[in-house]
Amino acid sequence: MGSTRTRIAIDAMGGDFAPAEVVAGALMAQEKLGVEVLLVGDQQQLEACLKHHPTVSPPPEIVPSEGMIEMHEEPLGALKRKPKASINVAMNLLKEKRADAVVSAGHSGAAMAAALLRVGRLRGIDRPAIGAVLPTLDPTSPVLVLDVGANVDCRPKFLEQFAVMGSIYSQYVLGVDQPRIGLLNIGEEASKGNDLAVRTYQMLQENTQINFAGNAEGRDVLSGQYDVIVCDGFVGNVLLKFAEGVGEIVLHLLKDELSTGLRAQIGAAMLKPSLKRFKQRVDHVEHGGGLLLGVAGVCIIGHGSSKAPTICNAIRSARDAINNGVLERIQSQYQKPHQKAASGQ
Amino acid sequence: MGSTRTRIAIDAMGGDFAPAEVVAGALMAQEKLGVEVLLVGDQQQLEACLKHHPTVSPPPEIVPSEGMIEMHEEPLGALKRKPKASINVAMNLLKEKRADAVVSAGHSGAAMAAALLRVGRLRGIDRPAIGAVLPTLDPTSPVLVLDVGANVDCRPKFLEQFAVMGSIYSQYVLGVDQPRIGLLNIGEEASKGNDLAVRTYQMLQENTQINFAGNAEGRDVLSGQYDVIVCDGFVGNVLLKFAEGVGEIVLHLLKDELSTGLRAQIGAAMLKPSLKRFKQRVDHVEHGGGLLLGVAGVCIIGHGSSKAPTICNAIRSARDAINNGVLERIQSQYQKPHQKAASGQ
Repeated sequence: MGSTRTRIAIDAMGGDFAPAEVVAGALMAQEKLGVEVLLVGDQQQLEACLKHHPTVSPPPEIVPSEGMIEMHEEPLGALKRKPKASINVAMNLLKEKRADAVVSAGHSGAAMAAALLRVGRLRGIDRPAIGAVLPTLDPTSPVLVLDVGANVDCRPKFLEQFAVMGSIYSQYVLGVDQPRIGLLNIGEEASKGNDLAVRTYQMLQENTQINFAGNAEGRDVLSGQYDVIVCDGFVGNVLLKFAEGVGEIVLHLLKDELSTGLRAQIGAAMLKPSLKRFKQRVDHVEHGGGLLLGVAGVCIIGHGSSKAPTICNAIRSARDAINNGVLERIQSQYQKPHQKAASGQ
Repeated sequence: MGSTRTRIAIDAMGGDFAPAEVVAGALMAQEKLGVEVLLVGDQQQLEACLKHHPTVSPPPEIVPSEGMIEMHEEPLGALKRKPKASINVAMNLLKEKRADAVVSAGHSGAAMAAALLRVGRLRGIDRPAIGAVLPTLDPTSPVLVLDVGANVDCRPKFLEQFAVMGSIYSQYVLGVDQPRIGLLNIGEEASKGNDLAVRTYQMLQENTQINFAGNAEGRDVLSGQYDVIVCDGFVGNVLLKFAEGVGEIVLHLLKDELSTGLRAQIGAAMLKPSLKRFKQRVDHVEHGGGLLLGVAGVCIIGHGSSKAPTICNAIRSARDAINNGVLERIQSQYQKPHQKAASGQ
């Protein structure tokens, strides 16, 4: 019973509101989505969390771990120092096929490093990427940006692989028909950009696996005109963290304006609930959820400030990626003809 | 008389509110700052603008030009097709030493191209850069980011020159004592980043001409912790345009929240003046003013949406750069010992 259900290992110690909100989100997913969750984390803390949900029966399995990777830690070193850290234990479950996916709201760089050490890359993929899903001006159309930090020096071929993987994820998990792929660049024309961008443009334009929509400038990233944006991990990471900085200064300016003069103060008081929701939505722009693409297992990263519903959504993405065979679809794009023939013999 | 006053050529046709606001700003500067302005633009239009300022006597000299470079035009081609475009004529005044500086609120790429064609580079500078001055969380401390678009593929040496030039500009025009120089990167440690960043870090750390404050991540750019941020023109351009996109989505989310429910609507109505000021301030984050560093003349770029006071500020920056010998100071950093000796003979 339940052994045929999709099983998802949850890094219950990762994220600002771990483990309480992570556990709550996992239970929500178990109930709503019909998946089976494995809670990886400190046994005592997780048992205490589960006591707040006494009606859940049977309670999910706890897989004990010791310690976690903090956001400021350098991933590789920390993963070695803490072999029993929650993300290491969760990736081991994936490796041993005791879980079909890993969901974490912790350090995305650490998740990538742990995944590479334990489950490895998909065949044919040179460099797995970290993707970030960000909201856009069009509420029905989020954008997947990759890479946002795993690969700081890229070759055109890597960006082409990001485009193919991103397109499959966008289609089968985000539900976009014919995802529009944009190449992050500094102008519209094919001749624009640095050497990497110019050479990648050519490859993307000739690639029949994707729907290439041309260059996307910085201002187009959140416009809703593109479903997937590819870039090297240096630019992507700077961009993602800069969004945080811009969000912060904008909120700061708003606060400043709203505290000047009685009229503004009264208006601001009336707007308190709206402004609070606004702040949360900006926060989502800053810290959108993410995923690892190109590793040999489904790994979804919720953003650090995830609360239960966001964790539940991340688990839903993991389930959809599994059910729609995202890994197999990516793999099949990189199976060379002679390999196909050989495996068919 | 007035021949000894600092003379500044104004591209009166550049910018969203040209020529009316540009002319108003130029006259404001002439009165407040004691500089002499040369208005470059369409004679008829400029004469019509000056009629709105009948008390100015004598009126500034008009230097006639024909046409201008539009924001969507590819600079080099457009500059060749329109040799009498306002920015070309303004740069010619600089070349012929009829003006000590050029101020424009037009296309920064076109200004750079026109400057390179007409006045050339400073000796010893490999690649001039476009700098952008952005506000930060600390209202007293704007940040100068360079390069934001002139050089898409950079060598460490170019970034080192950006740092030296940026430091001098920050000190002598923005009035910062010992400017803190940050290298845009994806982590704090010296080992972080792409090949360019790692090699540049080493050079900046060993350079005694500047006060190197280490790596700055995306979120640090607008934090006020750095006075100058150096990066290649690809990343810088993507960043600057992305700020625009983030600003837009944040304003959109705010509008959305403020139109939901009666309470929010009343609150928003009361806040109208504050929100309008807020929008203007966000706009300044998006479109901060800029400058060309490394060309053999002082060139200040006001942002496209400049109104008279912003134009006047840009002219003030040009005057300060001239009076404080910014070009000579940069030049002296790149005069090799044997050149110094030779020129001293």
